[in-house]
Amino acid sequence: MMRTTIERMAGAAGREAELCGWVYNKRSSGKIRFLIVRDGTGIMQVVITKPELMETFDRLTQESSLVVSGKVRADSRSPGGFEMEATSLEALQIAGDYPITPKEHGTAFLMENRHLWLRSQKQWAIMRVRAEIIRACRDFLDDNGFLLVDTPIFTPAACEGTTTLFETAYFEDKAYLTQSGQLYNEATAAAFGKVYCFGPTFRAEKSKTRRHLTEFWMIEPEMSFAGLDDAMQLAEDFLYFIVQRVLENRQPELAVLQRDVEKLRRITRPFPRLSYTDAVEILRKEGNEIEWGGDFGSPDETVLSARFDSPVMVHRYPSAVKAFYMKPDPQNPDVALCVDVLAPEGYGEVIGGGQRIDDSELLRSRIAAHQLPEESFRWYVDLRRFGSVPHAGFGMGIERATAWLCGIEHIRETIAFPRTIYRIYP
Amino acid sequence: MMRTTIERMAGAAGREAELCGWVYNKRSSGKIRFLIVRDGTGIMQVVITKPELMETFDRLTQESSLVVSGKVRADSRSPGGFEMEATSLEALQIAGDYPITPKEHGTAFLMENRHLWLRSQKQWAIMRVRAEIIRACRDFLDDNGFLLVDTPIFTPAACEGTTTLFETAYFEDKAYLTQSGQLYNEATAAAFGKVYCFGPTFRAEKSKTRRHLTEFWMIEPEMSFAGLDDAMQLAEDFLYFIVQRVLENRQPELAVLQRDVEKLRRITRPFPRLSYTDAVEILRKEGNEIEWGGDFGSPDETVLSARFDSPVMVHRYPSAVKAFYMKPDPQNPDVALCVDVLAPEGYGEVIGGGQRIDDSELLRSRIAAHQLPEESFRWYVDLRRFGSVPHAGFGMGIERATAWLCGIEHIRETIAFPRTIYRIYP
Repeated sequence: MMRTTIERMAGAAGREAELCGWVYNKRSSGKIRFLIVRDGTGIMQVVITKPELMETFDRLTQESSLVVSGKVRADSRSPGGFEMEATSLEALQIAGDYPITPKEHGTAFLMENRHLWLRSQKQWAIMRVRAEIIRACRDFLDDNGFLLVDTPIFTPAACEGTTTLFETAYFEDKAYLTQSGQLYNEATAAAFGKVYCFGPTFRAEKSKTRRHLTEFWMIEPEMSFAGLDDAMQLAEDFLYFIVQRVLENRQPELAVLQRDVEKLRRITRPFPRLSYTDAVEILRKEGNEIEWGGDFGSPDETVLSARFDSPVMVHRYPSAVKAFYMKPDPQNPDVALCVDVLAPEGYGEVIGGGQRIDDSELLRSRIAAHQLPEESFRWYVDLRRFGSVPHAGFGMGIERATAWLCGIEHIRETIAFPRTIYRIYP
Repeated sequence: MMRTTIERMAGAAGREAELCGWVYNKRSSGKIRFLIVRDGTGIMQVVITKPELMETFDRLTQESSLVVSGKVRADSRSPGGFEMEATSLEALQIAGDYPITPKEHGTAFLMENRHLWLRSQKQWAIMRVRAEIIRACRDFLDDNGFLLVDTPIFTPAACEGTTTLFETAYFEDKAYLTQSGQLYNEATAAAFGKVYCFGPTFRAEKSKTRRHLTEFWMIEPEMSFAGLDDAMQLAEDFLYFIVQRVLENRQPELAVLQRDVEKLRRITRPFPRLSYTDAVEILRKEGNEIEWGGDFGSPDETVLSARFDSPVMVHRYPSAVKAFYMKPDPQNPDVALCVDVLAPEGYGEVIGGGQRIDDSELLRSRIAAHQLPEESFRWYVDLRRFGSVPHAGFGMGIERATAWLCGIEHIRETIAFPRTIYRIYP
């Protein structure tokens, strides 16, 4: 007999199949027993009428593991559209009192039991959307001439300031955990043309907001022979592709999450582009207290993104609020050739990037002005001494993108084992 | 005019195209000048005959950046099969004295200049094979029902002993950098059926061998409702798929590396399977000094793998030399249901895995016997209390697989910025 998964159950319709899974729920109705089974790919109803299976059915508790086989048939009332009429049922292990019940639990309790909480429908759906987003990111870049080049986690110096770095003892020395692969991307872009890195990044921020984790995943493309406009075009095409792929392949998961998919469908290209200066003007008209020169806070981002159905690209922020490596706009050196992409519905910045300084003297003066250790950045300056080219790129945080596309409140549910200032367990 | 890359130059044959890149080499022959240009996707010859371009040509040094355009034509003598007859040539930046010249350099010097060394043909080829391997891994697992679920880097406890852990200050507490995502994979496999994780892993090993790095990437699939045989079958299909994809898509890179591809072509399924006990017998006949019960060293692995054209799967090692979570063989509890896959040509272990203990009492006694902190593993034991199932999986080190498929000696060249006991720069 063919073993199959719930996701692929349509292929077994009208035939006998074997299903391995866990009890999600069970109920009785007269002489018929119903088992709701989850197998990690979906949930499905199993109907039990044979008397010899009743004893096993009765023993089964929530999350007990089992192997069941029987005839598969289409049934529009069953979740997933199919159900199974059991001919055999074997319990593998009878679960003890499962701590997560349908009643409401507090977040602290659920986080403490994150290894089990992941089995719940909502968490299951989020993780499946996350995986789809990651695959879409990789497919898009791989198919558009970008080479994956992994950048290091252990670094000798800070990319964007030292206060939020995690420090590690490294034999006789010390090392810092990376905050971004970008500086290394600039080296590999000069070797391979167009590249991307994708890995975990770390910030020792004492933030307790719903948008921050200490460990999060970032995908960062970088292009040689490209400027700010190219980076904006890439960001637009990239995000649009991801949204379409999630809509195409993750409908059941979005339904579990009760995501308003119409809001995702309304996203169209081109995305609106707005200079920082124009954005400040809009914010002031809306009554936000911001002066030209200040960085945006979450309330500012929310006001801006609420004006558009599509992500909005805010470009040319004041150089003073951006990283040392941003190229000044030749038209107005007070602003940088940078862009932040703000997701709709108040989800805030999902992408940040821009064009990098390609002049070695300017870069060295910026490193000095930011009091960064010259020796640690020697290799980085080298990139401007040996075949410097205009180059640009950006980084997208996977967790923020996942929160937005899933339509969920808190970023901590977008990663399997979130790490925050208070939690490294489980 | 169309800007194109060397990799896609065939699409521009017979037409005008623009190419952005760097000087790889240049030479003159009578009144004709030849520029060998690299653009990160390949190298190509540009022919310069127009007198007005000579002045620019003369200024160009190794690794200077440029934009050139002209007519593209097929030429079998040119690397890549095409050459360009330049109609315009612009130098973007004239590189200073490039430190890496065609003469021989020592490894320490090259590693110190790794950010530039990556531009050399051999390193370029290795990184492109590495990216192909990674994409093949992901495609295989994604297309075979495995869900990517990222596991955490910060962990509260050691997976396989504490002596080789990197410790990090974590606010008021401390954390360790992960050595493997496997324990977490077991939780996510129970939530999603079949999963994989893929990320950097860390070992503070003071090894200076050519097979060790402190930071390396590992891909780890894990399956619920599966045993050792399933893990071996998966390892075989997985590795075979990767080898075929590299052979299919990375011929030019393998040629640069002078890889003997016949050795890769000779790999066939099924891979040989050998019990540890039989392997010890073979080794003793060959004169290796090994007693039943000891782990294999590199010389042992070399002898075993030299006997086969395909990777050899050695299974059922003594439980005593393997990790605490390995399931004992019910037929002989002295050995574990585990497997190491040894690559041919002496490349040693590329995959290690097996079936995990699914009984909570046995697992708890193993945790106690290994003096591991019970509290840190509470969640891990929970997986056996709530719906325990037979489950199995493995991990493959990307750097070892890359070294093998590229046919190169030292693992430090298989990652863009290798981290070793002595090096975290650049």
